[in-house]
Order: sequence, then C-alpha cells, then structure tokens
Amino acid sequence: MGITVQTQEVREAILDATDRILSTRGYKKMTIDDLAQEVGIGKGSVYLHFTSKEEIALSHIDRIVKRLKEKLHKTAAEDDSPENRLKKMLVCRVLHRFDSVQHYTVSISDLLAAIRPRLLERRQKYFAEEAQIFAGIIVEGQINGVFQDGDAMEIADTLMTATNSLLPLSLSTEELGEREEIEEKIARLSDLLLSGVLKRA
Amino acid sequence: MGITVQTQEVREAILDATDRILSTRGYKKMTIDDLAQEVGIGKGSVYLHFTSKEEIALSHIDRIVKRLKEKLHKTAAEDDSPENRLKKMLVCRVLHRFDSVQHYTVSISDLLAAIRPRLLERRQKYFAEEAQIFAGIIVEGQINGVFQDGDAMEIADTLMTATNSLLPLSLSTEELGEREEIEEKIARLSDLLLSGVLKRA
Repeated sequence: MGITVQTQEVREAILDATDRILSTRGYKKMTIDDLAQEVGIGKGSVYLHFTSKEEIALSHIDRIVKRLKEKLHKTAAEDDSPENRLKKMLVCRVLHRFDSVQHYTVSISDLLAAIRPRLLERRQKYFAEEAQIFAGIIVEGQINGVFQDGDAMEIADTLMTATNSLLPLSLSTEELGEREEIEEKIARLSDLLLSGVLKRA
Repeated sequence: MGITVQTQEVREAILDATDRILSTRGYKKMTIDDLAQEVGIGKGSVYLHFTSKEEIALSHIDRIVKRLKEKLHKTAAEDDSPENRLKKMLVCRVLHRFDSVQHYTVSISDLLAAIRPRLLERRQKYFAEEAQIFAGIIVEGQINGVFQDGDAMEIADTLMTATNSLLPLSLSTEELGEREEIEEKIARLSDLLLSGVLKRA
C-alpha cells in the first residue's frame, strides 16, 4: 500500500508541475525534461506515469473535472432549496473550469488547439458524469413539486448543452481574459434556465 | 452598374465553388488554382476578390450567416405567435449552420482548425446581429404580455449563449455526423428556453 500511495503522490506532483509550467512557459515550450526537473524526479519516472506530453495535458484536465465533480456533489448535498443549489451548480461548472485554466493566458489557445480532437472525445464522458449529479437535484425538485416533470437525465443533459458554450474550449483568448463578463453571462443564463425548469403556478 | 453586378456574380461563383471543393477535396487540399478552374476564370481574377484561401473560407462562412439572417428575418415576419416564431428561430440558427457545413464530413475539422482564431473574432459580430433580430420578437412578446419583462437585447444575447454550444465550431466530427441527435437537442433546449422566457401565470 505504501508504494501505491507514493505512486499516486508522484502522479499528483507531476500534474501540479504541469499547472505551474502551463502558466509560465506554456504548452508548446513545456517538455518532459522540464516536468521531471520541476518535480525533482528522473525523466524515466515521468514516463512510468504518462506516455506523452499530450496525455499529461489531458490528465491535467481530467483532474480539473474530477475536482469540479467533488464541488458539485458537495453543493448538491447542501441544506438549501433545489432551485438555489441547481443555480449554484450551473454557475460552478462554468467558473470552476474558467478559474482552473484562465491564468494560462496566451498559451491556452496552443494547449486547446493541440489537444482539441482528443478533448472533444473526452467531453462526452465528462458531461455525462456531470449530468448525473444534476439529475439528482432535478429529481429532488420534482419530488418536492417545485420543478416541472420530465425525464431528469434529459433535462440535466439539456442544462449541460445550454451552458457548454461558456466553457474554455469555446471561448476566445479575449473572452478568457474577462472573468466578470463570463460571470455575468452565466448568472443571466442560469436565471433563465431556472425559470424554465421551475413549475408554473 | 453592369460591372458591379458582374463583379458580385464572380464573387458568388467563387464562393459556390468553395462549397463544392470543400465537400469533395476538403480545405487542406483546396488551392486557388482549383477554385479558378472550377469557376472558369484566371487565378488573378480570384485574387481580385480575395487575398487568401483563409479569407475565402471566412467569406464563405460570412455568406452562410448572411443567409441565416435572411431566414430569421423571414420567420420573424411570419403570421404566428411570438413563442412559436422564437422557437422556430432558435432551431433555425442551429440547423441552418449544421446543414451548411455538415456535408464537408472529415474535412470540417481541418477547416475549423485553420480558421478558428479569426472565426472566433467574427462570431461576436455574427451573434450581435442575430441577437438583434431575436430582440425584435422578444419585445413583441413582451408588448403582447406573453413574455417576461427584461432587457430584450440581454435576453436575446442569453438565448444565443444557450444555443451556441450546438454550432459546428463546438461539435466534434462525430457529432457533425448525427443530424437527428442535434435536432433533438435543439428541440429540447428551445422548449426549456421558451419555458423560461414565457410569463408565469
């Protein structure tokens, strides 16, 4: 077990180093050597965990989404009305991703261009997992009689679609520089969506 | 005036040829020579209208959006309820674009990758112009008392954001192969959005 824990720690340290290098040197200039040096391990040890620079970047994004899901689960379990929690979760899925990558400034478009095809594939899985967390709240709101009836998983999927255009992959570098604008957009959008989800009197 | 009309015709013919070549040879392999030959003019004549292959592709997309706006104006003027027209327009902004490019099949990702940065810039203008057409219907629905109050331009902008993730630039090649799925997604999404826009009893 000691070995497994250590392995996991090295993996996390490599991803932490990835985050730091992406925000300074950027994706294009990042090398496996840089990463090894930053972590203080040999180049071979990096390859024990990841097969390529692309895989490291994708795993880094996997970790961002994993942390997002933890946050969503936490919000879903809070002691608040289903509508307040749902709204908070919609805002969270946009701003958590934004805050996780926006300090990469100019290098973000290099990164996204390089991993775009494989990232688009993974997104399906990310969205399905997120939708499941949202579906739980929707069912709760339906049982409480505050949300409209309908297939909760389909409604959750529609909420993902409605907010996906505000995720980093769809934003220009300029838009990634404007947190306030994105904050305002997701606030307005989640209000409109909530109004659509709520039961009519 | 004769010359202007002819100039416009040649321009349109070049864009028509672009559409044909994109659906057969694809963007990477498309050359200015191909285009000139397809139209039956000299290479120099193509350069009279466009400075580069990239500019031709962007102008081709400009034309897709121009035709979309014509359709939206037409729907906006139809003799139907504001809610029906608004829903039809939301579906139209997604499916018109989808149908305009989905026959490019595999070459679409080449095309979008090549012009992505400049396309992202143009999109702001496209969306603002579209939003203006939508705002007209929203004001109409508000005056009729069927839509909720609020800044019509802001609501229109939010509707653009909510449906933008279904536009070709945000879809994977696989998703671009599945019209029925996109059709179902935009139908469900526009229903939810309409439900959010409608005044509560």
